[in-house]
Amino acid sequence: QISCLVFPSLGRALSSDASPSKPIRATLFPGDGIGPEIAESVKQVFNAAEVPIEWEEHFVADTVDPRTESFLTWESLESVRRNRVGLKGPMATPIGKGHRSLNLTLRKELGLYANVRPCHSLSGYKTRYDNVNLVTIRENTEGEYSGLEHQVVRGVVESLKIITRQASLRVAEYAFHYAKANGRQRVSAIHKANIMRKTDGLFLKCCREVAEKYPEITYEEVIIDNCCMMLVKNPSLFDVLVMPNLYGDIISDLCAGLIGGLGLTPSCNIGEGGIALAEAVHGSAPDIAGKVYSFPCFVSNHFYCMKIDIHNRKTKKPRTIEHAHVLMVLVYIQLFHH
Amino acid sequence: QISCLVFPSLGRALSSDASPSKPIRATLFPGDGIGPEIAESVKQVFNAAEVPIEWEEHFVADTVDPRTESFLTWESLESVRRNRVGLKGPMATPIGKGHRSLNLTLRKELGLYANVRPCHSLSGYKTRYDNVNLVTIRENTEGEYSGLEHQVVRGVVESLKIITRQASLRVAEYAFHYAKANGRQRVSAIHKANIMRKTDGLFLKCCREVAEKYPEITYEEVIIDNCCMMLVKNPSLFDVLVMPNLYGDIISDLCAGLIGGLGLTPSCNIGEGGIALAEAVHGSAPDIAGKVYSFPCFVSNHFYCMKIDIHNRKTKKPRTIEHAHVLMVLVYIQLFHH
Ligand SMILES: CC(C)[C@H](C(=O)O)[C@@H](O)C(=O)O
Ligand SMILES: CC(C)[C@H](C(=O)O)[C@@H](O)C(=O)O
Repeated sequence: QISCLVFPSLGRALSSDASPSKPIRATLFPGDGIGPEIAESVKQVFNAAEVPIEWEEHFVADTVDPRTESFLTWESLESVRRNRVGLKGPMATPIGKGHRSLNLTLRKELGLYANVRPCHSLSGYKTRYDNVNLVTIRENTEGEYSGLEHQVVRGVVESLKIITRQASLRVAEYAFHYAKANGRQRVSAIHKANIMRKTDGLFLKCCREVAEKYPEITYEEVIIDNCCMMLVKNPSLFDVLVMPNLYGDIISDLCAGLIGGLGLTPSCNIGEGGIALAEAVHGSAPDIAGKVYSFPCFVSNHFYCMKIDIHNRKTKKPRTIEHAHVLMVLVYIQLFHH
Repeated sequence: QISCLVFPSLGRALSSDASPSKPIRATLFPGDGIGPEIAESVKQVFNAAEVPIEWEEHFVADTVDPRTESFLTWESLESVRRNRVGLKGPMATPIGKGHRSLNLTLRKELGLYANVRPCHSLSGYKTRYDNVNLVTIRENTEGEYSGLEHQVVRGVVESLKIITRQASLRVAEYAFHYAKANGRQRVSAIHKANIMRKTDGLFLKCCREVAEKYPEITYEEVIIDNCCMMLVKNPSLFDVLVMPNLYGDIISDLCAGLIGGLGLTPSCNIGEGGIALAEAVHGSAPDIAGKVYSFPCFVSNHFYCMKIDIHNRKTKKPRTIEHAHVLMVLVYIQLFHH
């Protein structure tokens, strides 16, 4: 079922950093549902591309590891810390009280402070939009995801959105660094500082500070509601977008929609010390697990994509998901080894 | 420059409630920038439609009215309270410290708890999407717009998002009431309760409570990031959407983008006691003020739209904005007089 296209520069991309004698070790979380099937295909893609890579596979445990207070084992986190590069399939967080989402645990434990999602139209995959080519960079550790919530009185609850100078500067630095390293022209900071003057205001202040160090990159600020309207009207107005956590969650999915869906968007989480954990952003799709066969079908100089055809168990109609995260790993191996 | 098309049922819509001997009194805030020009056209539309309406015009003051602590006069707010129906052009909040946004002041002072934005594709106005037909209903008083923010320590700021049972029930009631009264099939509550379990969780709980009273309306819950992706992929998946304040701000603008922009979306704010304040959601566009001439050009059974051609002062190229809020007023007069 699986046939591989070899993209010459895929091999080249790594060969400058790695030689057959010194393969790159990377952590692989196959994940749940369709995850293990996809992980198999991912490995075949790397084989076909003759990329010298050794995978350290780690599975989500059945029981909570007391050292991580989650279903992620300590060994799996250590593996990412050691290898500094990893690939994560979809993970279904077991339902039950008091268990943190596995995605959030990974972000927290590995200090994955920036989530990078390039969004490119795939030639051959028709949507309403052509030539989409933008990148969202999301602050990944704080903001609306603080987890701080409480009931004030009966019927009145509050959540805290936390913005810090440190995390804002860090993600802004990353965004400008990324823009420069990738030959991008413009960084747009997305905010709602007309309403959240202090929190989003601090975020903008940090972006402005960093922007001054990159005079060659155009910097602008766009209010989130206006940004969403402009994105659906004309996505080519944007280049690199940087924003607090929740706005990044929203806008990266909106952008995925422009090019066809979550299966088409590569995603990489950047952590302190140069950790790069690429991830599938779609779900684990347990209803179609075991029915997935995938084959690489699209290659560009931006990223490598596998097309996955799925025969839905119930409808028996063929269904298609696009899955694209492979070259992301390579891109970031590049970025961090230089 | 202005020619009017008369839409027969426009007159009818009002004639059941109003007779020439008892015209409806409505408050009109012409607003700033292009607002007064547009307001003139709005009046001509009502004239042409032979709608017996008397406008009480109120302008934004140059100085702060101590009774409202804003540039809105006490008299203008009293006028809306008395008439229970009004139309508001774009208002530019004077820049300066300590002045609340005029939009926010209106929402607060008049208890405008729900913002309703129907979003219909305009036949004849081509965008990437056909047959969009959905309505966003936004909680308009609390959530991320609490205004409660402070610095915790240097470099650490927080904003409070407040969700109350009372405001959530009220907007949910309105959404289901609206859905039923307008023959709509489905209400989708938009949230991020997987992260903000307490605040968005309470919002969902209230929606579920209300949903039980409307067994004929399908109720579903959609996570905001997923919602935005689905909206850009296939907006016809949605019917009526109800959500907390900031999500409503974002999604209503996204939806406006689907059909062509802010000038094409009617918007009405619903307040306690049946106040209905329709509004232009676009800005005051001071750069083109005085250069606007508008004529009604589009009529459907949903709403009435004026097309406004603008000769941009700088480029001298004709520019087009669509402006559509007139029937909204009528729709809500209907709704509240029955
Ligand atoms: C699964 C969920 C916690 C997560 C998020 O909200 O960050 C997801 O939407 C994402 O974007 O990775
Ligand atoms: C102008 C601004 C305060 C306002 C808001 O955020 O509510 C606007 O975006 C709107 O949607 O009416």
